Amino acid sequence: MKSHNVAMLGTGLIGDFYTMTLHSQRSRDRVGIVYSRSDERARVFSERWDIPAYTTSIEEAINHDETDTVVVGLPNFLHEEVIVAAADAGKAVLCTKPLARNAEEARRILDKVESAGVFAGYLEDLCYTPKAMKAVETIESGGIGDVTWARSRETHPGPHSAWFWDKEKAGGGAIVDLGCHCIEVIRMFMGKGNRPVEVMAWSDTLVHPIEAEDNAVALIRFESGALGQFEVSWTFRGGLDLRDEIAGTEGTIWLNHFLRTGLEMYTSGSGDRYVAEKIESTEGWIFAVGDEVSEFGYANMFTDMFDAMDQGREPRETFYDGYIVNAVMDAAYRSARSRQWEPVDIEWRGGATGRIEKRAGTHDGHSIVKREILPDGRVKLMLSNKETGEIFDLVTNE
Amino acid sequence: MKSHNVAMLGTGLIGDFYTMTLHSQRSRDRVGIVYSRSDERARVFSERWDIPAYTTSIEEAINHDETDTVVVGLPNFLHEEVIVAAADAGKAVLCTKPLARNAEEARRILDKVESAGVFAGYLEDLCYTPKAMKAVETIESGGIGDVTWARSRETHPGPHSAWFWDKEKAGGGAIVDLGCHCIEVIRMFMGKGNRPVEVMAWSDTLVHPIEAEDNAVALIRFESGALGQFEVSWTFRGGLDLRDEIAGTEGTIWLNHFLRTGLEMYTSGSGDRYVAEKIESTEGWIFAVGDEVSEFGYANMFTDMFDAMDQGREPRETFYDGYIVNAVMDAAYRSARSRQWEPVDIEWRGGATGRIEKRAGTHDGHSIVKREILPDGRVKLMLSNKETGEIFDLVTNE
Amino acid sequence: MKSHNVAMLGTGLIGDFYTMTLHSQRSRDRVGIVYSRSDERARVFSERWDIPAYTTSIEEAINHDETDTVVVGLPNFLHEEVIVAAADAGKAVLCTKPLARNAEEARRILDKVESAGVFAGYLEDLCYTPKAMKAVETIESGGIGDVTWARSRETHPGPHSAWFWDKEKAGGGAIVDLGCHCIEVIRMFMGKGNRPVEVMAWSDTLVHPIEAEDNAVALIRFESGALGQFEVSWTFRGGLDLRDEIAGTEGTIWLNHFLRTGLEMYTSGSGDRYVAEKIESTEGWIFAVGDEVSEFGYANMFTDMFDAMDQGREPRETFYDGYIVNAVMDAAYRSARSRQWEPVDIEWRGGATGRIEKRAGTHDGHSIVKREILPDGRVKLMLSNKETGEIFDLVTNE
Amino acid sequence: MKSHNVAMLGTGLIGDFYTMTLHSQRSRDRVGIVYSRSDERARVFSERWDIPAYTTSIEEAINHDETDTVVVGLPNFLHEEVIVAAADAGKAVLCTKPLARNAEEARRILDKVESAGVFAGYLEDLCYTPKAMKAVETIESGGIGDVTWARSRETHPGPHSAWFWDKEKAGGGAIVDLGCHCIEVIRMFMGKGNRPVEVMAWSDTLVHPIEAEDNAVALIRFESGALGQFEVSWTFRGGLDLRDEIAGTEGTIWLNHFLRTGLEMYTSGSGDRYVAEKIESTEGWIFAVGDEVSEFGYANMFTDMFDAMDQGREPRETFYDGYIVNAVMDAAYRSARSRQWEPVDIEWRGGATGRIEKRAGTHDGHSIVKREILPDGRVKLMLSNKETGEIFDLVTNE
Repeated sequence: MKSHNVAMLGTGLIGDFYTMTLHSQRSRDRVGIVYSRSDERARVFSERWDIPAYTTSIEEAINHDETDTVVVGLPNFLHEEVIVAAADAGKAVLCTKPLARNAEEARRILDKVESAGVFAGYLEDLCYTPKAMKAVETIESGGIGDVTWARSRETHPGPHSAWFWDKEKAGGGAIVDLGCHCIEVIRMFMGKGNRPVEVMAWSDTLVHPIEAEDNAVALIRFESGALGQFEVSWTFRGGLDLRDEIAGTEGTIWLNHFLRTGLEMYTSGSGDRYVAEKIESTEGWIFAVGDEVSEFGYANMFTDMFDAMDQGREPRETFYDGYIVNAVMDAAYRSARSRQWEPVDIEWRGGATGRIEKRAGTHDGHSIVKREILPDGRVKLMLSNKETGEIFDLVTNE
Repeated sequence: MKSHNVAMLGTGLIGDFYTMTLHSQRSRDRVGIVYSRSDERARVFSERWDIPAYTTSIEEAINHDETDTVVVGLPNFLHEEVIVAAADAGKAVLCTKPLARNAEEARRILDKVESAGVFAGYLEDLCYTPKAMKAVETIESGGIGDVTWARSRETHPGPHSAWFWDKEKAGGGAIVDLGCHCIEVIRMFMGKGNRPVEVMAWSDTLVHPIEAEDNAVALIRFESGALGQFEVSWTFRGGLDLRDEIAGTEGTIWLNHFLRTGLEMYTSGSGDRYVAEKIESTEGWIFAVGDEVSEFGYANMFTDMFDAMDQGREPRETFYDGYIVNAVMDAAYRSARSRQWEPVDIEWRGGATGRIEKRAGTHDGHSIVKREILPDGRVKLMLSNKETGEIFDLVTNE
Repeated sequence: MKSHNVAMLGTGLIGDFYTMTLHSQRSRDRVGIVYSRSDERARVFSERWDIPAYTTSIEEAINHDETDTVVVGLPNFLHEEVIVAAADAGKAVLCTKPLARNAEEARRILDKVESAGVFAGYLEDLCYTPKAMKAVETIESGGIGDVTWARSRETHPGPHSAWFWDKEKAGGGAIVDLGCHCIEVIRMFMGKGNRPVEVMAWSDTLVHPIEAEDNAVALIRFESGALGQFEVSWTFRGGLDLRDEIAGTEGTIWLNHFLRTGLEMYTSGSGDRYVAEKIESTEGWIFAVGDEVSEFGYANMFTDMFDAMDQGREPRETFYDGYIVNAVMDAAYRSARSRQWEPVDIEWRGGATGRIEKRAGTHDGHSIVKREILPDGRVKLMLSNKETGEIFDLVTNE
Repeated sequence: MKSHNVAMLGTGLIGDFYTMTLHSQRSRDRVGIVYSRSDERARVFSERWDIPAYTTSIEEAINHDETDTVVVGLPNFLHEEVIVAAADAGKAVLCTKPLARNAEEARRILDKVESAGVFAGYLEDLCYTPKAMKAVETIESGGIGDVTWARSRETHPGPHSAWFWDKEKAGGGAIVDLGCHCIEVIRMFMGKGNRPVEVMAWSDTLVHPIEAEDNAVALIRFESGALGQFEVSWTFRGGLDLRDEIAGTEGTIWLNHFLRTGLEMYTSGSGDRYVAEKIESTEGWIFAVGDEVSEFGYANMFTDMFDAMDQGREPRETFYDGYIVNAVMDAAYRSARSRQWEPVDIEWRGGATGRIEKRAGTHDGHSIVKREILPDGRVKLMLSNKETGEIFDLVTNE
């Protein structure tokens, strides 16, 4: 039974979530050393999670005796540098999202790990939530037919650290922070082989005194004809709104990951307690999930990553996926400026996907537009004359 | 106590809903005559709703002795013609949505009733749902601050009559059928004085064998900077998805009008029964509303229309509103073709609206980007240096 | 077209709701005079609702020129006295719930209106909510088979007037205030002809400094074998919890009347506004209904009452129903004291109802306990040997 | 890092769930041998879960070389026998719920493991669901004040194996199968130190051709005055209804574990797929959880059990708890027969709990019954005269 020893780079909220997950349940993997720029934060973090060593040197963390896997939980502008170092050291590297600040940077990162031949996993946790995985399973089994539309929404009142708000360090605003989740989630529902062709985006800075966008909506047209749609905001009130909706020719899937999950509480505010990340108040009706580690996908994600390493296979989420996500975001930023659809500029490895098929039946040589059962049991057909295109009703006893 | 005598033009589903509403509860208004192209349908309809007269002549219906109000529930391509006739006869005219097939036609209709000086009301029922009205009241009272974004969604498996599917007769597809609702609902949440400036739309015919679009998504940029977003589809599976979501700087409103309203039923299918319009199955978990007349806004709508007539005021929804809606739809169709933002081309009567205001506080001369209370009670400020734009964290005891 | 002129007795919250309903939409009925013990309250009320006359004399209100219908919205201990006066005056009388403080009083009231021959209606609005009416329609059509269990729950943080809290004036506590709703709602789902046989109840005064019960739960066994269950509380936190759940042999119905109805709002509390009765806060996530007049059943209720008068038929809810409700409450109070099941002591007019039928099929002479389809398509039967009672599994290809 | 080797006794649905959990994520514990009465089932199970050994001998499974922990997933009537064997062999023993068929049997089991000195854990998974654990945390922190009422409901269309339906083998019907969950869940919310004093129950066999009850409702009075309430049914239609509701003096908690958890799907039935245990149909709107292993509490449960073993502490759920549950069920069965409240007959180890405290404030020497803020900002007090008990209103500016 193989186990892994992790160097955790970064002690922010995401470092906490990752370490909590790695140490949760009956896991056989452990964080062996933690790095922070700040000695104090590294020490406190190592105590909080019972980690045997801490350091303020990235080199030391990566090359620590027992480290076999480097987990990157640092601000976006530091990803490339540390991934290069980890790859050079021959260590497996798992990087938080987004992979980079733009596709060019992402491409260099991808090339580096591929040429170094090290294992690389893209830590897109929202592709591993139990709900999303069940949805994908349902889609792949044909349960909703061909996907025609997918909406992924992530909005909250804004991130917890200064660097997120800094356009230069982060690579952008809400699109980079939240849109990267949505894009990959949408790709997963569309099918990874369904090429994102072009993007139309709106973004604006409506509320906060920052340069980066605090609100954005984008449409992504896929090769099959299906439409992806993401909505991101740093100005949402009421907590963390994290929802996906998928429409298919044979069904519909709605996922609500945080605000209405069957856990509902009203409190007069008399207690003294932390309920969940990104809850806005500690009084009144409150909504959250029971277990963030499991329901936000962290548990499934690290299991897939380490199992993939042990089995010599690719994980579900790779650096190539991270690169695609960056390319879609680049197109969104271009579109927000050019005010028109912009192509997604990528080296595509995913093959070709056919157009969503129209499967209209025929009746007496006419296409069936719709078929309805009337209250009296008869059938009403709306038919299209194949030659003239005229559409007319026909009620039959069939 | 004034009462009104209505000539109902049209015997389709909408005619049924309108008449059911007019005759519902303890109403003092009645339909006095009904018109249909088909004598048989007119007769059956008059019997179903206990209407004293029926006719196959529009002229006769309009000029029927006691008629003081003409309700237009006919296919879109017939609106202009009958409204002209009603205006010429000096009768009040209430017209179903959309007002016309395009803004040009709508403009002629508007000019006609204004020059004739007759009362004219736009029957946009979804602006009168009790939920929407409570939402508007909340918004107007400042309950959610400045509106930054509104989403209106209407999707179902497709309409019940052939003419809806016919691009020529209807003026378009799902945008004209469903988008007209969404646009006016969004305007209501944005404030009627908030000018719709430009539109970006995607549309496609993904599933049905028709020329008109069966799916569309559009973004509408308003003068305040806020974004409206509508999603329409004739290919949705699972019933009638009718939802609005509004985000504001101080709050959030979510309205679900049909699929999760506190009425939830599971049935093995053993009974024999009609549950509601646009429900897809009579087996399994089923969702609907209790009373479509009230919850879809029909009751409030006709009350407003007749009260407005009796009080000599304008109704909440006017033909001018209908004209704006058509102009926004026109822009959406243009954008779907040009693949870029298209201006909304209108004669604007609504005045000017200021930009959503940024109300960032300051701390030591820096703009406050975000303020969070830490678990230990201290306050974390994310601050922006007004000169350099640099963003940094500060933890204080305040 | 008949219209009615109402004497409204009482100016409390219920008087407001009744008058709002009577005057709502395009109603042809009006309140012509209002009575209150307090001249000031009568005057203010008459102004609020545009009522032409007010008085502090019950006699005067009842015998006011145009009054044809007396609506009783007074505290429980005053019902008998005013109903006797109205019946003596030969006026139709509509009485709020509960009809009386106990079955004995209710019986005298019932006898009085029956001997006087006046129209009498029991204003149990929750039997007229659109959701409840759709549920009843579904049940009557066989949609959920035989009802086996019904739960009705009404809880909130306590009533708004002193007399409710006074055991003597009200006739009890939460059972009398809220249980009376639940009992009649349960009867409606069970079928009015299904006799309530016996009651088992728990009650206690857990939180408030009062003598009356502030919490109670009761079980009601019906002749068919089905179980009714009501839960009432004056100590619930979070608003007004008003839910019904019905289980049948072929289906399930869940009704939520207030807290999750598709109207969901989050507000930072910045606005200045009344959202709805019994909402606990004006900040955070808030839940309500769009239109209390319609969704709480008031509109349907008065329509039924006046239509019944005009058509010379009984309304859906009669004083006999009110009497049954009081008898069930009496049994609940007796049971809470005796700590055992207590019979419902009534003069029963509803006929007989058979036992819920067991419809087990047979297989090879054994009763089928359950039939399941296995993932591989085969069928698993759980069978009961009719002689020995032994239960065993059998997997077949059927 | 300690790991455990498990002998899994039983290959039914619960054996599958337990093994799936033990082998899930990055667990270091494994099933080393599996026992079934049937050689075929043991072999198939061992292959499905990649278990190195299987046997038809309980002795062999328990005494298998590496077995340190015996997990009992057998029918109720076999628990005592195998626990005695495991205890005699000195192995840790984890037993599925209920512990036994009645309190007498449970007591003997408890005495056996205590005298043998082996580790014993009660596998009540529903006390370990993330939602329940968050609820308990909230309650313990004072977030909802004193608990006054808790409802636990578990209903579905009936179990999957013949022995469950057999009163003799199972020890009863729906109460034993489902009520055991509810009782322990209620105890957890009430506080384990809050003694269950007496029980009032109704049960009946309404639908299935069996001797055991297929429906039951019970009330449990706790020492604090709070009321527990459970509802169980084998005749529910619509899937698995698993909900808890808790009322406290300062708040409310609602948990929905299966039917509305933020995972909602509609399918025309075109796919070919297993969605979840106890879903009734594969068509229409379908509800489930994303990950049963995590959300039904299995993951947390085994983690607690093994961590407890490794740390030499008691697990959260012990055989003593199982014994209490059996005693409460015994009281329920007695009450269903005697038709009155029946005491819970137990050896109590939990100490004493005080009565829920009434914390009424005073105003001018009167008890404050309720305090409301009026729309005009004034305060309405409902006051109780401490001497006379009379209750009256007072409006103040405070």
